[in-house]
Amino acid sequence: MLKLKDLNQNLVKVHYAVRGPIVLRAQELEKLGRKITYCNIGNPQALRQKPITYLRQLLSLLEYPQLLEKKETSRFFPKDIRERARRILAQNPNGLGAYTQSEGMPFVRKAVAEFIEKRDRIKSNADRIILTDGASKGIQLVLMALMKNKKSGFMIPIPQYPLYSATVRLYGAKQIDYYLNEKNDWQLSEKELTLSINSARKREIRPVAIIVINPGNPTGSVFSKDNIKMIINFARKNKLAILADEVYQENIYAKNRPFHSFAKILVKMKIKDVPLFSFHSVSKGFLGECGHRGGYVELRNIPEAIYQQMLKLQSIGLCANTAGQIAVYTMVAPPSKGEESYNLYQKEKNLILSELKGKAEILAKGLDKIKGMTIKVPRGAMYAFVKVNLPTKKNISKMSPAERLKYESKLNFDYCLKLLEETGICVVPGSGFGQMAGTFHFRTTFLPPKEEIKSLVEKLAAFHKRYIQGTQKNVSA
Amino acid sequence: MLKLKDLNQNLVKVHYAVRGPIVLRAQELEKLGRKITYCNIGNPQALRQKPITYLRQLLSLLEYPQLLEKKETSRFFPKDIRERARRILAQNPNGLGAYTQSEGMPFVRKAVAEFIEKRDRIKSNADRIILTDGASKGIQLVLMALMKNKKSGFMIPIPQYPLYSATVRLYGAKQIDYYLNEKNDWQLSEKELTLSINSARKREIRPVAIIVINPGNPTGSVFSKDNIKMIINFARKNKLAILADEVYQENIYAKNRPFHSFAKILVKMKIKDVPLFSFHSVSKGFLGECGHRGGYVELRNIPEAIYQQMLKLQSIGLCANTAGQIAVYTMVAPPSKGEESYNLYQKEKNLILSELKGKAEILAKGLDKIKGMTIKVPRGAMYAFVKVNLPTKKNISKMSPAERLKYESKLNFDYCLKLLEETGICVVPGSGFGQMAGTFHFRTTFLPPKEEIKSLVEKLAAFHKRYIQGTQKNVSA
Repeated sequence: MLKLKDLNQNLVKVHYAVRGPIVLRAQELEKLGRKITYCNIGNPQALRQKPITYLRQLLSLLEYPQLLEKKETSRFFPKDIRERARRILAQNPNGLGAYTQSEGMPFVRKAVAEFIEKRDRIKSNADRIILTDGASKGIQLVLMALMKNKKSGFMIPIPQYPLYSATVRLYGAKQIDYYLNEKNDWQLSEKELTLSINSARKREIRPVAIIVINPGNPTGSVFSKDNIKMIINFARKNKLAILADEVYQENIYAKNRPFHSFAKILVKMKIKDVPLFSFHSVSKGFLGECGHRGGYVELRNIPEAIYQQMLKLQSIGLCANTAGQIAVYTMVAPPSKGEESYNLYQKEKNLILSELKGKAEILAKGLDKIKGMTIKVPRGAMYAFVKVNLPTKKNISKMSPAERLKYESKLNFDYCLKLLEETGICVVPGSGFGQMAGTFHFRTTFLPPKEEIKSLVEKLAAFHKRYIQGTQKNVSA
Repeated sequence: MLKLKDLNQNLVKVHYAVRGPIVLRAQELEKLGRKITYCNIGNPQALRQKPITYLRQLLSLLEYPQLLEKKETSRFFPKDIRERARRILAQNPNGLGAYTQSEGMPFVRKAVAEFIEKRDRIKSNADRIILTDGASKGIQLVLMALMKNKKSGFMIPIPQYPLYSATVRLYGAKQIDYYLNEKNDWQLSEKELTLSINSARKREIRPVAIIVINPGNPTGSVFSKDNIKMIINFARKNKLAILADEVYQENIYAKNRPFHSFAKILVKMKIKDVPLFSFHSVSKGFLGECGHRGGYVELRNIPEAIYQQMLKLQSIGLCANTAGQIAVYTMVAPPSKGEESYNLYQKEKNLILSELKGKAEILAKGLDKIKGMTIKVPRGAMYAFVKVNLPTKKNISKMSPAERLKYESKLNFDYCLKLLEETGICVVPGSGFGQMAGTFHFRTTFLPPKEEIKSLVEKLAAFHKRYIQGTQKNVSA
């Protein structure tokens, strides 16, 4: 019989908190009839966000093109969508049921390049774009390709989205932590990056790439232009590739902090020797089409031979799923002004984004008022990374760093588990993303409907008060 | 700038012939206006196989459930499909746009277990089933989990589907070749397996699993029950897990050689200590839905702790795409007798399978008549692995094994490239799958329409004759 010791030990050691034991417990409680508010994962349509009609109408026609031949369909599918479905079928006569090229359908890749060109007013090369099953698979593809050996190190923000730490661990490479500055709105500091890379080099790690998440997950922050320039210069100086996770680029809520892509800043800085991999996805933004697993990676400053290796890697799994490829297509090439679908598309898009903005404010302002919690209104993404003061043992300063990390992680975990058990609110402990020693956080989405967010704030306030009173009682007992 | 030497060298060393240089050349020629007959890949809908209406109607409704509310739809969607779409939406109210559980939608996994129970008259546990993006991703999941370290060895058939060699190489594990016996219809022999595993152990490789492909790719053979029993006993004796690639289980053409699953034989032998991973897919069979990337892996004789590790691995990439999960659902739970869709479903299914059977015969009987080619009518899958005699240099016996492999691979490759250039027929050289030294093959699908298959046979006959004459001229010159 197989035992844990027989498995890949890198796998056994992987931590993956977003779908970890707290979520499993939430599912158990739900089976027992408890109402659970899932704030653990950016899964908008599981929290009643409606799909964008345009994409779904198009996919409906492409799955069953015979619909196009029925005259009745003209009554419930707008003309521009029917025409677009016909154009797609002409460009891809095999339909959704055939493998595509490993890199994805050519016209979709071309549309991605045009989207980048329009968004950033820079050139983009369709022959450096690979369509992937969500951004996650694209990120794993690049990490696998760049992992030269066990000494290869990837600079990962703390806090981070745990896909990165999990994948780097799984592939047997080295994680190089760098801390985001909570006091400076979770931006990066050159001093911290330099400390971090130097410390890695001392441990004989060979840094190969830096991973950045902008807008931030779990932080909800958005990088300033200057911060991006600093990162690019740092990467150049240290001969690092950049992996830019930009899946939340449409989720921007603060007017004074627009999204700047790494590609745009790189081009404007005229830098041609820093390899850049930029990731995007249909799972986030206003589409929220997580289930369709669509995404892309754009490779920049990458020679043909390297691109061919990435393509070979993608080809082993054949190609990204076709419905996801089409979802990417509508994300990068939405209906145009004047087309029949345009108004509804804009209305649905604006509603989703304005609701998210509103909910971010209600959540953050509400939680920030709770004694012992600190959170600024998120400027981007779908998350608030809430700082929470938890009473700790008095002897904490005597612990070794490893003991302390373990103790603090457990405390953070227990807090979130208790929150779940008492209120049905499912969040992820900050320890799942990484945090500075001595600090505690949890990540919550602001995806639930507005009324639920309001009630969530109230429940959290009451819970936190009870929790603190309870621990004080324990401490004094 | 990134150079090849900066990349993961395992990736750089991977060979992946199915989408290799010959296919790239075919695409180039096609762009120049040449007609190409793609026989390189099992991609039925790219060769004009029609999708099964039932699945596409269901997906069309699920993508755009508002269709269910329009009274006109009752005219072009049968009642049972509309009802099924409603049931699916009730069971999965988030629809196709939300992440599912990492392991897939619970009701689909339950249906998979019931399908296995019905197919094999054995018990199957839904909590040991993971839905994956095609079988490829499931296979990679298991290989990643079982790869304890660089000494871990996977027994791989020669010839094989190159996903296996590529993935084992990519993950840095060891490939242990075992040869299938062409003279005995590509079955496995215990003697060969024993030789192979002993030789690996001498090289300090630690064998952990044996991979079997039944029905065979590229061989088109189907294992006898006795052969399966022998393999299970061999695995047990050598403490190996079994990875059973059974994606062609519906593609069975010879009445006297039915498909037996490894799960069924394992249970009938009452063996509880051989871990078994069985893979299935919507890409093959009669669905041919390659683009939708749907599949599953059933784990058997696997304890909960190991299953949890596999789930964790799957969760890092979130979940399989939802349209693919629904495709799996209809594969394992097709319409029942008496339902409105049943007759059309059966008719489409039987037509596809009987055409494949017919084309397998035309192809194999035609090619077998060509002087210098040998092929038996395939009993399963979608491929003929055609043996072809190619004239070699006289000094071949003086070459080292490595030199000889290189020379023979090149000769095999050049033959297939020349075939492409002269006739537009795109096949994969046998060297891409592995073959006995001194033998040459190519793999062709029998997926093109019947008339094209007939013309393919004629073109191949003429080409082969010219090729042999040409080489003889060269030799005598």
